[in-house]
Amino acid sequence: MHILPEFPLVEPGDDLCEHILVSLQKASLSLQTGDVLVLAQKIISKAESRYAYLNEVVPSQQALELAPKVDKDPRLVELILSESDEVIRQRPGVIIVAHKNGYVHANAGIDKSNISSDEENPRVLLLPEDSDVSARRLRDELLERTGCQVNIIINDSAGRAWRNGTAGMAIGTAGFEPLVDLIGQNDLFDRPMEVTQVAVADELAAAASFMMGQAAEGAPVVLVRGAKLIPSDSGSGALIREKAMDLFR
Amino acid sequence: MHILPEFPLVEPGDDLCEHILVSLQKASLSLQTGDVLVLAQKIISKAESRYAYLNEVVPSQQALELAPKVDKDPRLVELILSESDEVIRQRPGVIIVAHKNGYVHANAGIDKSNISSDEENPRVLLLPEDSDVSARRLRDELLERTGCQVNIIINDSAGRAWRNGTAGMAIGTAGFEPLVDLIGQNDLFDRPMEVTQVAVADELAAAASFMMGQAAEGAPVVLVRGAKLIPSDSGSGALIREKAMDLFR
Repeated sequence: MHILPEFPLVEPGDDLCEHILVSLQKASLSLQTGDVLVLAQKIISKAESRYAYLNEVVPSQQALELAPKVDKDPRLVELILSESDEVIRQRPGVIIVAHKNGYVHANAGIDKSNISSDEENPRVLLLPEDSDVSARRLRDELLERTGCQVNIIINDSAGRAWRNGTAGMAIGTAGFEPLVDLIGQNDLFDRPMEVTQVAVADELAAAASFMMGQAAEGAPVVLVRGAKLIPSDSGSGALIREKAMDLFR
Repeated sequence: MHILPEFPLVEPGDDLCEHILVSLQKASLSLQTGDVLVLAQKIISKAESRYAYLNEVVPSQQALELAPKVDKDPRLVELILSESDEVIRQRPGVIIVAHKNGYVHANAGIDKSNISSDEENPRVLLLPEDSDVSARRLRDELLERTGCQVNIIINDSAGRAWRNGTAGMAIGTAGFEPLVDLIGQNDLFDRPMEVTQVAVADELAAAASFMMGQAAEGAPVVLVRGAKLIPSDSGSGALIREKAMDLFR
């Protein structure tokens, strides 16, 4: 695993593909087919200009009612609700929602460290519109520019049920199967057990998240080389448990 | 990150410290202070002889009532219950419990691929009695034999709420802070935000779990070198969300 060095601060409209290739060059690395690039969600959101300005947000009745219960600005609550399909839990400080892209995420991934310092017109950063689309686009661009078929993970730090602290989770993938079936074992009665599945994309997202956290400065891209993954055109949807099968919604 | 090569099949009473040092030697590696060793739970359990024989288990009334609802052998259900403080959810195939060591875990971590092939007297493998104690003991032994202060993680593959597939989680740690506070940012009103905490032990457990899954043969120990961790005598308890603070119990 390599942290891509000297990655610039990303601005709306930036060419992330170009940033990646320049940074790789600084590290004397060149891409290879099969490489995995893990990108922090925030740089995708910034490149895609997913800023929202609170002064432009008109809170709905639902947001106005929810805001005091969660101790948040009603305009921020409105943004969280508009990014989500369903509120799953709430308490002061946090609204846990099913994001409209499917994953369960605190505050729709919005209000972590993304508040602008401009007090007159504060802004927040939303998650990418569709991280699987963003991942696929980047994969396609890298293929066009380098000839290499690269796997992409867009990761975000996510809170979990039952456990303190965040861990990296994959909110977008391209190029590989994010969920891998293990060969079933037999149970006590010699019947095959329920299929065991491993969320390899989440494990890689967590590994990269650890690496990003270890860097002294912002290090939003990690290269993983040598991982054996199953090529696939599917995105990250397989990682999301169907609502009807979810005991915790 | 290095997979320790040619790690032997572990038997009850085995000296894991010795196995680790021999395997490191085969890889031409020697331990350094600050290294992290991540060990799969199953080798700790095997070394500690945490086998349970179903023929020796007498199911309680609660186990007899629960067994048909979860489609499991009542004796296995009895073991799951006796390893747990509380049943949190259930459905056919799975009982999600709070393990008596605190973490929420499907089937108390018991019935994955641990069923013996001896049909006359089937056995299963329980989690270590206390993985923090096991981790600390191994750390102490390695210190005594090598002079190096090594960090230990005992990992297990765990199902999660909301997401398909398992990911590595830390059920025991020694030597370092498993949960790290980030420096707080200010919120919209220039108040410090809730402290952000990162579950570094779980991120490393997930990374190692990915590595273990990549190996062609059993690879139950991974060495992580160069991680910056905060030395601490605390175990893994900080990773467990207090019941009163948990919205999903």
